[in-house]
Amino acid sequence: MTASIFSLGKNARSNNAGKDSIVEGGSRPCESKRQGLILVASLVGKVPNLAGLTRTCEVFRAAALAVSDMRITKDPLFSSISVTAEQWMPLLEVPEADLGHWMVQKRAEGYRLIGVEQTAGSTLLPEFAFPSKSVLLLGREREGIPLELLQLLDHTVEIPQLGVIRSLNVHVSGAIALYEYSRQQHAQQQAKLS
Amino acid sequence: MTASIFSLGKNARSNNAGKDSIVEGGSRPCESKRQGLILVASLVGKVPNLAGLTRTCEVFRAAALAVSDMRITKDPLFSSISVTAEQWMPLLEVPEADLGHWMVQKRAEGYRLIGVEQTAGSTLLPEFAFPSKSVLLLGREREGIPLELLQLLDHTVEIPQLGVIRSLNVHVSGAIALYEYSRQQHAQQQAKLS
Repeated sequence: MTASIFSLGKNARSNNAGKDSIVEGGSRPCESKRQGLILVASLVGKVPNLAGLTRTCEVFRAAALAVSDMRITKDPLFSSISVTAEQWMPLLEVPEADLGHWMVQKRAEGYRLIGVEQTAGSTLLPEFAFPSKSVLLLGREREGIPLELLQLLDHTVEIPQLGVIRSLNVHVSGAIALYEYSRQQHAQQQAKLS
Repeated sequence: MTASIFSLGKNARSNNAGKDSIVEGGSRPCESKRQGLILVASLVGKVPNLAGLTRTCEVFRAAALAVSDMRITKDPLFSSISVTAEQWMPLLEVPEADLGHWMVQKRAEGYRLIGVEQTAGSTLLPEFAFPSKSVLLLGREREGIPLELLQLLDHTVEIPQLGVIRSLNVHVSGAIALYEYSRQQHAQQQAKLS
């Protein structure tokens, strides 16, 4: 493995994140630094999707994952799917009613607000250059992102879909977007090194 | 949307695939051409993962999805997750016992055999250049790809994982690999057009 975000050493050792604060999650040392992306799953309703996203965010060391209600992590179904990821992953509680306000606050902190949604103005994911500080909003399982939140976003991106169904599961969409973000950060670091 | 594999027009209208034959799946017209990648999920055991992979393969218009037992598609849990994808997606039945033989046959047909697995010799997924004709083998949920099949592969790729858990769900791994394959095919087509 080459020197990159994929191998930067950092032995994080701290407590899990409190409400709306981002710290190194978990109490087990981990080799790599957290990335700059916050994934927002406050609109996601289904436990398997939320638990899956927690696991995937942990694997990619996202900065944080926002959910609408932290109690979801106590659900036995959640635990069976998250495979302890919630212990190592900074989780934020951002109820849906607070989402607009919270997003505007994040923009003021230097984040760009990006939604994963199929709209007439969406950029294809592979062609979108992610800023390092990105807030990535996922939509509801069926309805996607409501209009009042869409209007707050700086960008919308869509995953190219070729088939008849044209709708990826929300966990898979979030995972692909996280992968693409990570890939780009990696490529930028490689470019700086060479 | 620009001219690319993401928008090539083709009104496919044919029956679903029979055993071990690849044809345009489904009976509903679809705008885009099938890609050259066959995803192999014959080692994947859990119904939600198999159903999820069927949906994801359909969305990316993979050439085909191999499963160990076609009867899985009759499971009500499968249907609830696949959202009818099995009707549009060419499925192949390749039992685990036949997998080695089948893979060798695919290589003779011009496919490269690629496994998604963390090994000492794996290439990081973003750095791997997918051949157009790729057979992509996913591992078992816990144990990954058994040694006797690993030895048959032309390449192994791994998704860069940064966290404590270091193990993505197999459906998510397959989805990310399919996305990366599609992204590369798209980029190649764009390069030819420009």
